[in-house]
Formats: sequence, C-alpha cells, structure tokens
Amino acid sequence: MKVFEARLTVRSYECDFYGHVNNAVYLNYLEFARMEALFQEGFTLEQMRRDGYLVVIRRIEIDYKYPVTMGDALVIKTFVEKSGKTSGTFVQQIFREEDQRLVADARVTWVFTNLAGKPIPIPLAVRRAFDMVEET
Amino acid sequence: MKVFEARLTVRSYECDFYGHVNNAVYLNYLEFARMEALFQEGFTLEQMRRDGYLVVIRRIEIDYKYPVTMGDALVIKTFVEKSGKTSGTFVQQIFREEDQRLVADARVTWVFTNLAGKPIPIPLAVRRAFDMVEET
Amino acid sequence: MKVFEARLTVRSYECDFYGHVNNAVYLNYLEFARMEALFQEGFTLEQMRRDGYLVVIRRIEIDYKYPVTMGDALVIKTFVEKSGKTSGTFVQQIFREEDQRLVADARVTWVFTNLAGKPIPIPLAVRRAFDMVEET
Amino acid sequence: MKVFEARLTVRSYECDFYGHVNNAVYLNYLEFARMEALFQEGFTLEQMRRDGYLVVIRRIEIDYKYPVTMGDALVIKTFVEKSGKTSGTFVQQIFREEDQRLVADARVTWVFTNLAGKPIPIPLAVRRAFDMVEET
Repeated sequence: MKVFEARLTVRSYECDFYGHVNNAVYLNYLEFARMEALFQEGFTLEQMRRDGYLVVIRRIEIDYKYPVTMGDALVIKTFVEKSGKTSGTFVQQIFREEDQRLVADARVTWVFTNLAGKPIPIPLAVRRAFDMVEET
Repeated sequence: MKVFEARLTVRSYECDFYGHVNNAVYLNYLEFARMEALFQEGFTLEQMRRDGYLVVIRRIEIDYKYPVTMGDALVIKTFVEKSGKTSGTFVQQIFREEDQRLVADARVTWVFTNLAGKPIPIPLAVRRAFDMVEET
Repeated sequence: MKVFEARLTVRSYECDFYGHVNNAVYLNYLEFARMEALFQEGFTLEQMRRDGYLVVIRRIEIDYKYPVTMGDALVIKTFVEKSGKTSGTFVQQIFREEDQRLVADARVTWVFTNLAGKPIPIPLAVRRAFDMVEET
Repeated sequence: MKVFEARLTVRSYECDFYGHVNNAVYLNYLEFARMEALFQEGFTLEQMRRDGYLVVIRRIEIDYKYPVTMGDALVIKTFVEKSGKTSGTFVQQIFREEDQRLVADARVTWVFTNLAGKPIPIPLAVRRAFDMVEET
C-alpha cells in the first residue's frame, strides 16, 4: 500500500471567529493532498482533461477529531482503501505534525468519468501509480 | 418534524475550473443553512457564546449527486434526524430550485460543548426550537 | 449613468476570528455584484467565452471604511466611472442596508481580451448595456 | 529597509473556471505573507489581541500583472513603504519563482487600534521589528 504525504501550515484566513479552521476548509486541505499525490505521480488535472477524463468526487465522510488553529503544521496521509472498475475510495488522515495527533479522518469516494460525465474505467496508468489492484 | 429551508444562488467565485461548485463550498452552504435555521429560531452564535456554549461539528457525510454551476438557485432543507443528551444529527439536503433535483445529501453530527470544549446537555431552548425529543 | 444594485447578507463562514468579514471576501462581494450586473443585462461569462472574449481584472483599489459582520445585509452599487477603447473602471460601493452606511469603496479596472489574452475593443453590446460612451 | 519573504504554491481550489487564481485569493496570499512577517519577528495575532491592540486594514491597491495558475510557486516580498504615528503602508509584491516575473504589485495600508477600534500609536516593538522610522 502506497501512502502519499502532503504538508501544509494553517493560514490565518482559514480560521473562523472561534479561531479554528472552518470545517469546509478541511475539504480544501484534502483536495490539496490529492493533487499533491497526483503531481508526485506525474499527473495534472489539465493533462487528464486533455486526455478526456475527469475525476469527480461522489462522497466524503469526515470525522473532526480535534480543532486546529493558525500556524499549526499538518501532515495529510492519503492512500487507496478500495477500488473498483470505475471508482474508488481514498482514506485521508490529517495529523498535527508537532505531536502526530490525528485531527481529522476522512473517506473520499471518487469516480472517473469522460468529459460528458459518464463513468469510465480507471486509466491503467492511474491504477498503477496509486497501487490499485488491477481489474482482470 | 420541523424542516428549515434556506435559499441561495451559486456565485461565480464558488466555481472551480470545471465550472462546478467545488466540493468544499457545499459545506459552506450547509453551514449557511444551519445558521439560517438558528436565526429563524432567534439564536445567534455570539449570544450562544455569551451564554457559555458552542456547537461543534463532529462528523459530516455528504453525497454529491449532481453538479451545480454559477447562477443555479438552490434550496437547502435542514431537519433533525436524531438527538441525544449532548449531540445530534441534522439531515441537510440541497435541491436545485428549478427542477427540485436533489444535488447533495448530507448528514451533519454536532455536539454542544462549554467554552472549554467539554460536552454539555443540549440547551432546552434549542431542543424545543429544533423539535428534538426532550430527554427524560 | 446607470447604477446597478446587488444585495447579499454576510455569511458566518466569511468572517474571521475578529468576527469581521475578511478583507479578501469583499473582493468576492464585488465580483458577485459585477456578475449580477452582467446577468441583469443578459450576459454570462460562458456566453462571453463562447463569443471569444474574457474580462480580466487589472487593478483594484478598495478602502475599508467600516467593519461588517455576520447577518449584515449589504447593498453594492456598481457603475462605470470611465471607459476607453479596450478597458474601463467601475466604481463599486458597499453599503450596510440598515443605515445606508458606506462600508467599502472600490475602483475596479478591467480590460477586454481575446482568449489569448490580447486586449480587444469593448464589444458594442457591453458598451451600450453599461452606458459607456461610444468610441467614435 | 527590511524585506520579508514568504513562499507558497498555488492550490487547485484557489483557481477559478478560467484556471487562474481568482483576484480575491491574492488578498489571502498577501495576508499570509504579512502573518509570516509577524511570525518571523515573534508576533502573533492572539498575543497582540491579549496586549490590547489590533491591526486593521484600511486600504488595498493591487495591480494584477500576470495570471498565475495551479502549481505555480510564488514568492511574496513585503516591506514598509511609509509609516506614521498610528498607521503605515506595506508594499507587497508577488513574484513567480520560476522566472522572477512580477505577477502582482500591492500597497496595503493598515492602522493600529485598541480593541474598541480607536487608533493608537504603533507599538515600539513593532516599529523596531519592521524597521519603521521612530517617531520623535
């Protein structure tokens, strides 16, 4: 199992009037980590679109475990939990770097589609890059 | 069961480079709808904080059913699915107004805490306003 | 001079940890008001792109006069201050609806370009819709 | 003159449907760079608030010189252009790291206030940290 890591530091404008990162912003962080994983494997959204496919998010489950605040350094671990012919699920866990505390725990389900939105098989290159079992 | 409704129209800056509302922005919409429900019942976050309690989001599950785009008018329905002594779950459903199509379906679990973050019983006024079964 | 009006109410997630709308969010509000003006006149960004042109922001000047906070109802007035062959400047003023207090005052300079980014003459339909002096 | 540098990379969710960083997001970047400068000098917003003062943005002027897109690495230089008794102006310039191209050029005017919003003299520690001329 290949685990991708992305790092970021919480910015002032991401915090709400409780001084905590707003719950919607965590989804930005998760997207950032997924993009980093794609980049590390040599993919870009632009290239994928030119190649005729999109990755569409179908479902997100996220547990907020512990609040984070401005200046906190975070590590986001992303790995494939399961995958089928056209779709799959990433586990994405956000840790506070300082003490490795798990601050949020998410499952993100996505599907590959063509530009018209119809599901298509996960491209082989993606399957290999992300260590998904190959369909037989 | 009391169903709260909030209305909004998708704004240009909420759309990503696919032209769709980014998945994190849906959580902003859900927060907006929860705040509208609070306002309708005469609550504000400031007043709640002055009264010594916070509402903290613990978990969100959201299914993205259909993309929405700039100018789409949306209706968000919010109602209590279940509630316990200190916490509860809202169902929040986002519909496209034009055709009443369900575009996203969410479950949001929250807990009441004191200012130190310790869970406290849901205040009676909140329980009544949101039609939660009263604890006996 | 044609003055366009757009209305919105400040949302919880737009406020920072001082409880005030963050200064970047005002630019979202201004964009929203410009889009509303376009819509009112029958234009959309998609149609404009299909027609081969973009509106690109070149400069923004904004004076923050008074803080606004969650729940404040705002009115944004937008009008053309000056225009040339390819570019122009809008004045955009944000008022708090309750007391008509001016809370922010902006000048936004934009240019029409083709899809390659080269400035092009402001389309006649736009010129007429926004009451700009026609070039002779 | 002390020049502060902050670095960041453009994230996917910061781009609009033209694929460019939305103009409001640049103000987030500028805020990020100002916070980094404060941190480097040992200040935090929380500490400043505990000490009884706020920094309030009064005016921003920004020229957008060149579009930036997902994955672009940026460097933001921040320095004091002028300062008075209670207020001052930063120049903030955003460069694309790859070719040192200036992509945005801003002037940000701020004022120190007490918690009630009344202007107060710039604290001496801040004046020294940011290389402002001391008032005599």
